[in-house]
Amino acid sequence: MPAATVPAIRFRRLLLTGAAGGLGREMRGRLRAHCETLRVSDCAPLDAASDGEETAVVGLEDAAAVAELLKDVDAVIHLGAVSVEQPWEAILPANIIGAYNLYEAARRNGVKRILFASSNHVTGFYRQDQVIDSRDPVRPDGLYGLSKAFGENLAQLYWDRHGIETVSVRIGSAFTEPKDRRMLATWMSYDDTERLFVAALTAPVVGHTVIYGMSDNATTWWDNRHARHVGYRPQDSSEQFRAAVEARQPVLDPSDPAVVFQGGVFVRTGPFE
Amino acid sequence: MPAATVPAIRFRRLLLTGAAGGLGREMRGRLRAHCETLRVSDCAPLDAASDGEETAVVGLEDAAAVAELLKDVDAVIHLGAVSVEQPWEAILPANIIGAYNLYEAARRNGVKRILFASSNHVTGFYRQDQVIDSRDPVRPDGLYGLSKAFGENLAQLYWDRHGIETVSVRIGSAFTEPKDRRMLATWMSYDDTERLFVAALTAPVVGHTVIYGMSDNATTWWDNRHARHVGYRPQDSSEQFRAAVEARQPVLDPSDPAVVFQGGVFVRTGPFE
Amino acid sequence: MPAATVPAIRFRRLLLTGAAGGLGREMRGRLRAHCETLRVSDCAPLDAASDGEETAVVGLEDAAAVAELLKDVDAVIHLGAVSVEQPWEAILPANIIGAYNLYEAARRNGVKRILFASSNHVTGFYRQDQVIDSRDPVRPDGLYGLSKAFGENLAQLYWDRHGIETVSVRIGSAFTEPKDRRMLATWMSYDDTERLFVAALTAPVVGHTVIYGMSDNATTWWDNRHARHVGYRPQDSSEQFRAAVEARQPVLDPSDPAVVFQGGVFVRTGPFE
Amino acid sequence: MPAATVPAIRFRRLLLTGAAGGLGREMRGRLRAHCETLRVSDCAPLDAASDGEETAVVGLEDAAAVAELLKDVDAVIHLGAVSVEQPWEAILPANIIGAYNLYEAARRNGVKRILFASSNHVTGFYRQDQVIDSRDPVRPDGLYGLSKAFGENLAQLYWDRHGIETVSVRIGSAFTEPKDRRMLATWMSYDDTERLFVAALTAPVVGHTVIYGMSDNATTWWDNRHARHVGYRPQDSSEQFRAAVEARQPVLDPSDPAVVFQGGVFVRTGPFE
Amino acid sequence: MPAATVPAIRFRRLLLTGAAGGLGREMRGRLRAHCETLRVSDCAPLDAASDGEETAVVGLEDAAAVAELLKDVDAVIHLGAVSVEQPWEAILPANIIGAYNLYEAARRNGVKRILFASSNHVTGFYRQDQVIDSRDPVRPDGLYGLSKAFGENLAQLYWDRHGIETVSVRIGSAFTEPKDRRMLATWMSYDDTERLFVAALTAPVVGHTVIYGMSDNATTWWDNRHARHVGYRPQDSSEQFRAAVEARQPVLDPSDPAVVFQGGVFVRTGPFE
Amino acid sequence: MPAATVPAIRFRRLLLTGAAGGLGREMRGRLRAHCETLRVSDCAPLDAASDGEETAVVGLEDAAAVAELLKDVDAVIHLGAVSVEQPWEAILPANIIGAYNLYEAARRNGVKRILFASSNHVTGFYRQDQVIDSRDPVRPDGLYGLSKAFGENLAQLYWDRHGIETVSVRIGSAFTEPKDRRMLATWMSYDDTERLFVAALTAPVVGHTVIYGMSDNATTWWDNRHARHVGYRPQDSSEQFRAAVEARQPVLDPSDPAVVFQGGVFVRTGPFE
Repeated sequence: MPAATVPAIRFRRLLLTGAAGGLGREMRGRLRAHCETLRVSDCAPLDAASDGEETAVVGLEDAAAVAELLKDVDAVIHLGAVSVEQPWEAILPANIIGAYNLYEAARRNGVKRILFASSNHVTGFYRQDQVIDSRDPVRPDGLYGLSKAFGENLAQLYWDRHGIETVSVRIGSAFTEPKDRRMLATWMSYDDTERLFVAALTAPVVGHTVIYGMSDNATTWWDNRHARHVGYRPQDSSEQFRAAVEARQPVLDPSDPAVVFQGGVFVRTGPFE
Repeated sequence: MPAATVPAIRFRRLLLTGAAGGLGREMRGRLRAHCETLRVSDCAPLDAASDGEETAVVGLEDAAAVAELLKDVDAVIHLGAVSVEQPWEAILPANIIGAYNLYEAARRNGVKRILFASSNHVTGFYRQDQVIDSRDPVRPDGLYGLSKAFGENLAQLYWDRHGIETVSVRIGSAFTEPKDRRMLATWMSYDDTERLFVAALTAPVVGHTVIYGMSDNATTWWDNRHARHVGYRPQDSSEQFRAAVEARQPVLDPSDPAVVFQGGVFVRTGPFE
Repeated sequence: MPAATVPAIRFRRLLLTGAAGGLGREMRGRLRAHCETLRVSDCAPLDAASDGEETAVVGLEDAAAVAELLKDVDAVIHLGAVSVEQPWEAILPANIIGAYNLYEAARRNGVKRILFASSNHVTGFYRQDQVIDSRDPVRPDGLYGLSKAFGENLAQLYWDRHGIETVSVRIGSAFTEPKDRRMLATWMSYDDTERLFVAALTAPVVGHTVIYGMSDNATTWWDNRHARHVGYRPQDSSEQFRAAVEARQPVLDPSDPAVVFQGGVFVRTGPFE
Repeated sequence: MPAATVPAIRFRRLLLTGAAGGLGREMRGRLRAHCETLRVSDCAPLDAASDGEETAVVGLEDAAAVAELLKDVDAVIHLGAVSVEQPWEAILPANIIGAYNLYEAARRNGVKRILFASSNHVTGFYRQDQVIDSRDPVRPDGLYGLSKAFGENLAQLYWDRHGIETVSVRIGSAFTEPKDRRMLATWMSYDDTERLFVAALTAPVVGHTVIYGMSDNATTWWDNRHARHVGYRPQDSSEQFRAAVEARQPVLDPSDPAVVFQGGVFVRTGPFE
Repeated sequence: MPAATVPAIRFRRLLLTGAAGGLGREMRGRLRAHCETLRVSDCAPLDAASDGEETAVVGLEDAAAVAELLKDVDAVIHLGAVSVEQPWEAILPANIIGAYNLYEAARRNGVKRILFASSNHVTGFYRQDQVIDSRDPVRPDGLYGLSKAFGENLAQLYWDRHGIETVSVRIGSAFTEPKDRRMLATWMSYDDTERLFVAALTAPVVGHTVIYGMSDNATTWWDNRHARHVGYRPQDSSEQFRAAVEARQPVLDPSDPAVVFQGGVFVRTGPFE
Repeated sequence: MPAATVPAIRFRRLLLTGAAGGLGREMRGRLRAHCETLRVSDCAPLDAASDGEETAVVGLEDAAAVAELLKDVDAVIHLGAVSVEQPWEAILPANIIGAYNLYEAARRNGVKRILFASSNHVTGFYRQDQVIDSRDPVRPDGLYGLSKAFGENLAQLYWDRHGIETVSVRIGSAFTEPKDRRMLATWMSYDDTERLFVAALTAPVVGHTVIYGMSDNATTWWDNRHARHVGYRPQDSSEQFRAAVEARQPVLDPSDPAVVFQGGVFVRTGPFE
């Protein structure tokens, strides 16, 4: 059952990229209610289209295919990208060239609103005892975070220059439940994710807004006060999982960079040998 | 039934100006419980005084009459003014000269606390994707907003120089319910209005405090963190009306200044031909 | 000899209001070099027009006369106003109604740039041990400062709504030399005043900019960093007068509000009996 | 029944200093659940040790005894100190020398986490109509507040230099219920106190964090947004006591420094004759 | 004659990329004095190596060649890139892939200090009446500015993660003299450029510092106060050229985006058809 | 020859503590010109009193002697203290108890202005690539810095509560010339020191002001914009010594905490074994 009790149809056609990924599969089912037609894409195989759906297997590095993909679309939820730390050879085509292709396709097709799935790893090198907001300078924790910072700046450019609005959501940890102690701070439930995505797509005016994607967790490192115009009010909290998580995972070693910094293990893993 | 469960009598005599207006009529009934005597005034005819009430028909531009009006008063809720965009010839006497007359009368009569009904139109030229607070520079959206900015500065002067305390409430949209999509951000229920007015009148120390008057709406453009000493905690939200409002009003045109700016239609209507 | 070595002719016709006042008389001679025709006005009698000058005796409260005054004008240096603390009956027509009349006349006549002579008394209730900038909330020290705050807000409105650009100059103390210890902080030489006025009139883009008008004094309470786009660089300093001023004026009494607050004697003199 | 539903055992041995004081006695019972062994100390006599407890009567000015006290301890809740305004002769040994002794003992014994009971009196000279946060400069209201500011700076030094983490809790008013109108703003329930202490001791990374200790009161002067990583979410509010408190205590005199300033009576009582 | 009177030899081997470009050619002559060996590179032909120089023609998109280029280098002045607005097909290899290749080469070769030639076009969509600093969010005005924002974030990542220090210089307009009215604000003389480059290379600690590259112009849009640790003190000013520039270039049209925004013509030219 | 050309006599009697130390000896000669009588004190032997001088050998930990020392004094320059990192046993009596004794003596003797020699070591744990100002939270680098932070807070308390004004000067490195690379940022010439001291003693209103004591060095870590009301304008610069210093001292190791942090060697030396 969808979390938001909004009128069923807001958009004629929504495009969801990255629909074969973990979050993409979850959102595919939920976004169906918010449009007449849901177009879903991925570079990987997709489940067959159900009623009211269209599917397309498209690599984001293929500019012509992406241009085609955005035809007759009202708005885009752009989850498609490499979503973990990977070598440059993987990040570059999907997350940098792919993001450019997507915004160029939006410009050429007259798409005026995009939800860009950014990441908390854009600011992963702030410490876990710092509370930051969306205007603090970025401090990416790896090539993945770096590529997401690129995407946010691209969104800013296409807003300032071409009037395409974007909400860049710096997603924390969108899973069924928090898997470890770090996620007590970063977790965003699927219901809250849907709430945030719908708010971002339907808020009357967003320009380019950056917002952290998290539930109403007791512990947080992120202050969303500059984005309250989006109308996102999380209703879930990681707190219900705290006892179980703390019982399951040993006390953390505060000398481990993965504990000190907000990016967690991303700050010490990845392609740098 | 009044929203606030405060002790019935706080003040010996309260003065409510603008008591014949929409908000004035609503507050008249509610403020009665917070004082021994409620004096109500307006330039327009008033309903007959009920038990514990005094009525006075007074034009704010009449300095002598206003001086008389504030005699033996403990505190003032100053709603009296032109409350929409109007030509200068209407704004000047009621909102500028009238405000001066009121504060001079307060000074001469020893009144020490005023609730000044300011307006969100004091900052109406900020964009709807900006979240501002009470210390951001004013950007009035018309002569009405300009006159309310004057009133706030007057209140600041009378505090700094004469020790008269004021809470300037930048009222959003105080109606029974939100009438359109913009009011999903700006709406303040009558119950919350009463809560805010009572808090503003009874907080021990306010100096000159500026606070935005809104309910606990999911969407907002205003951050009241500098006014938390007032003790106002809204308990209503426009969210319950969202589905109906969005179903009723077509999607907004983001190229319309009335959609882009917080002031709504005020930014493009009014006396300027 | 003019202080600024700018090309002689920038404007076809400049209007200088308040040309019979102290600062007006000084600037009249200097502004002549920056335009083909200098129109000067005041409510008081003016010296006869010299070559390239036009004179007009106009009260600012006379809307029709002010509308006429701004015809065929490229830019306005608006010094005309009551410039010290006065009763409301004097401030209202000249500084409030007069400012409105001037901006309405500018709008109707297509004038696109105004230098508005505001005053440090807009923020006179900050302490002399505080360093403030143009974004700090106003704290007028009397009716004069209040009326200047009104004028700044009016300028903001006419910029946001009508595209008329203004530099609001919060003038400190524009005299031949500093007359007392307070003016060691607030003094602006006539040469620097000319520099600031010319910069404000000729900077390519100013929107509505607020800048404090002072020389490069060693002691200051004002930080102009938000206005460096104006291009004003003072070249004088009160420091050369310090020894003489300190020898002449006894040590100040720090319990005197006129010493504690930036507004000086304005904070304790004026129409309030 | 403890307020927090956390796993029973987090620490092998906790040390609670000041365990014979009012708050100490209350917390002694509650902290027992969060460790295998609770060592409690005070300079005054203590109730006999119950199961799993160790008691020690130690004066904080005794460096050797304090060094002994911190042996084999995992974390310290340091309530021990003079906790009201007192002459310098009492403040110096307990709050200044004592705090130094405690941190030196922690350093020598390898203790890595301390909860330092600081006080709102560190910032007691801010006005009650100001909302401040933990980064605003300190303004102690007496020798007690001064000593607590010393303790916070000491904690900062031991973090920056020796890697010992501290949460400095600027406690408002930790009592069974708010006793007067001021405490409507400053009150922290015992349940919330326990929640805050447990969060402060168990948050993965705190460095040196300063947080105000208060419940979720409607009225507040303190903004904890820089400390949201601690994970403290108050669940109580003084609001339920408002009517009774306001009925009991007469309206306050706003000319009384104890009403104007956040520190209350501390700003005008104490050792200064 | 070099502008800075620093000791001749600071570095064993400096690498200057982009040495065939306009600024590169100018700096090549000046940097020679600051090292034993100056290695210069470009993708275009270079003047023959003089004494103490080494030349290399290398395309930045060639990772292996770049890795070779950085061998035995102490520090890099990275000017090499497309330096005007160009299509994505040109920006991507030189400015994005090239920047990545350079930093990876630095990491592998143990180079610890880089001067990255960023650009004011990283923030070109701020208005010319705004004064911004290096912590304000980026607002690139085209693909070129976007690529420079990428480079800055890359530098931040390599500092946070790999300890490579960078000064990112957001160069204004480094030419012999200001060519138009906009450059009165943005101009940086070659002498000042050398001063800034030497300061950036020799300051003891820079982490990742962003600084705007401009002379001490009267008019500016940029506040470098967060970078004063670099020790850059400009000694030139565009003011000496003002009269000539203003005489030469007609008054600007304030409705032209190239006048309104800091980026100048970049905001309306480029690859977007 | 004194640096400041101020009138010879400002004060009837000035007290200079710490007059036998390095800076004290230098200032003793200079302050003589600014008062009728200069009282100098130290715990160490002092040069014999010259004409217009009084000498007193007093330990600051002796409250009664300090009370006597401040009799008939108009203002105090309080240099007396341990001025390097020392064990707690030395810091406590001189810098903590001594500071308290001094302020208590000032209160009892009606002394209304104090110059407190604080230190940059109050914020020594900020990095050398950070530019901080006087409102950033303190981060002392050792017991010495901690004691100076105590003194500043004491000064704040005596201002807020007792109306005694203080300028706390966070002295960088007051020597004849900069001795090493770090002092290129922190150096304050003796002439500038005199300028700052005289400004601090004679500014009409200072409340409690914190200012960093440094010359106009090209490189700096400190922003004094909140203290411009003091009127201190340095006229010297370390730049003239740069070449010699850099030639003399080898390039610094950026992995050394003494290079990374502003406090220099203080961050890794001192009493902590």
